[in-house]
Amino acid sequence: MFTGLSAFPFTPITSDGIDEAAYERLVGRVADAGVDSIGALGSTGGYPYLNREERARAAELAVKSAGSVPVIIGVGALRTRDVLDHVEDAQRAGAAAVLLSAMTYQALTDDEVFGLYEDVTANLSVPLVVYDNPGTTHVKFSDELHARIAGLPRVKSIKIPGVPADQVRARVGGLRSVLPDSVSIGISGDAFAADGLLAGCDGWYSVLGGLFPKTCLAIARAAADGDAARARALSAELAPLWTLFARYGSYRVVSAIAVEIGLLTAPGLPRPLRPLGETGRHEVTAVLNGLTKRD
Amino acid sequence: MFTGLSAFPFTPITSDGIDEAAYERLVGRVADAGVDSIGALGSTGGYPYLNREERARAAELAVKSAGSVPVIIGVGALRTRDVLDHVEDAQRAGAAAVLLSAMTYQALTDDEVFGLYEDVTANLSVPLVVYDNPGTTHVKFSDELHARIAGLPRVKSIKIPGVPADQVRARVGGLRSVLPDSVSIGISGDAFAADGLLAGCDGWYSVLGGLFPKTCLAIARAAADGDAARARALSAELAPLWTLFARYGSYRVVSAIAVEIGLLTAPGLPRPLRPLGETGRHEVTAVLNGLTKRD
Repeated sequence: MFTGLSAFPFTPITSDGIDEAAYERLVGRVADAGVDSIGALGSTGGYPYLNREERARAAELAVKSAGSVPVIIGVGALRTRDVLDHVEDAQRAGAAAVLLSAMTYQALTDDEVFGLYEDVTANLSVPLVVYDNPGTTHVKFSDELHARIAGLPRVKSIKIPGVPADQVRARVGGLRSVLPDSVSIGISGDAFAADGLLAGCDGWYSVLGGLFPKTCLAIARAAADGDAARARALSAELAPLWTLFARYGSYRVVSAIAVEIGLLTAPGLPRPLRPLGETGRHEVTAVLNGLTKRD
Repeated sequence: MFTGLSAFPFTPITSDGIDEAAYERLVGRVADAGVDSIGALGSTGGYPYLNREERARAAELAVKSAGSVPVIIGVGALRTRDVLDHVEDAQRAGAAAVLLSAMTYQALTDDEVFGLYEDVTANLSVPLVVYDNPGTTHVKFSDELHARIAGLPRVKSIKIPGVPADQVRARVGGLRSVLPDSVSIGISGDAFAADGLLAGCDGWYSVLGGLFPKTCLAIARAAADGDAARARALSAELAPLWTLFARYGSYRVVSAIAVEIGLLTAPGLPRPLRPLGETGRHEVTAVLNGLTKRD
């Protein structure tokens, strides 16, 4: 479950909950493509913007729609009490694992971040993926902190942020050297995934995989087969998408793509976030039209 | 209400709510000292860690315990929907004004930040204070963005972060030049308050004022009287406290002080935040013992 392609579908958010039918379609489409796992309620799944009830409902729908594909469910929150509530709901819904970020308002010390994972793993009966996402949480995990957390029971994988191609081998090698063998490393930041997998990452926690799972599976399989040229070439074809992700944020771009290709009838973003404006939507259309192959 | 000293009391958080008796004492103590306003559920009030019910209850208790002192209530949240719920609760509790930060998980564009304030002020019947706190929200307000927001109805004050003494006059002057006269500027970052007030800030949104209101009032009054030497000297006497704020974060230090001086029986911090350890507590004790005058 913690290797290969883990696809993170978008959660369409409405003013009074989530668009359940659309969410089931998005998850089902990803499961049907044969991904190795599904990440529900990751950042692309909008977890920080949903209340407990909405998150519990999304977890249920994701597990139901995923069929036999294991579902990893995001449980992060600013307060440990709320994380534990989300863990309870995720487990009840049938989560195969949980994904835990270290969300912050007040900056956290390393001991506080470790304490969060300690408190949560002590109350957990499924595996946990450490979600290292400095772009949203502003927490910087050192290798030493990762190693401390990886020593806790039930910690089975680390979702690391993207690393530039010329640094990824050193980054992954350095982190690997301090982790138990039982803990996998998964790359995120889709633009960096091919190089990350080729540099020794065990898996790819993918935003685009939630929309175009077959396209992303082709990259992941090429990398797993050691076909570096093919993995890089397939990723390079998607470079215009990576550019849009960097320009507008992948969350807004994924929403716009889903509308553009008819998977959603509304952007499904929670205010204060706003959908892409006309310029951005035109760029999305142009990029999609330029892709020779995609799901 | 948007000038002088606005004191921000700590909210003692327990595993199942807030310590209501202790909170009433903290607010009452500040009100009795004669502060110009009270800021309930600011960052020191732990607003991002409390659920809707707890925040509504804290708002009620703060207004009740504040007597005739106007209470400004923090309403920030990651999602606009939740902000509007907090606004409703704050107004029902008798808020004299609301304080709104631009909390983020996904980074927000300037248009999204403006849109947040636009959506909220359209649903508001009391004045609003813009809470500019890049240290926790990671939003950088340009003067241009402040000016756009200050043009919205009911925006009456801006709570700006601390600015080093050698830059504060330019900062305040630059911001003032783009704001309507009806919008006050209040400084926060207690270490910078004396210089901020002397540089033309209308008020001081104060963390320490929530614990030692008389001590802080003396600084604010000296600055208002144009007695720069006295304002700076009084602030300088507190420099060891400002050092602890910088080292451990004012939120943890205020909790430790409140315990040390008997205002609280427990630290009242929500996990994953942890109380100061033994070293930090000893430093707090030493600093308090070294202060010649305080409430």
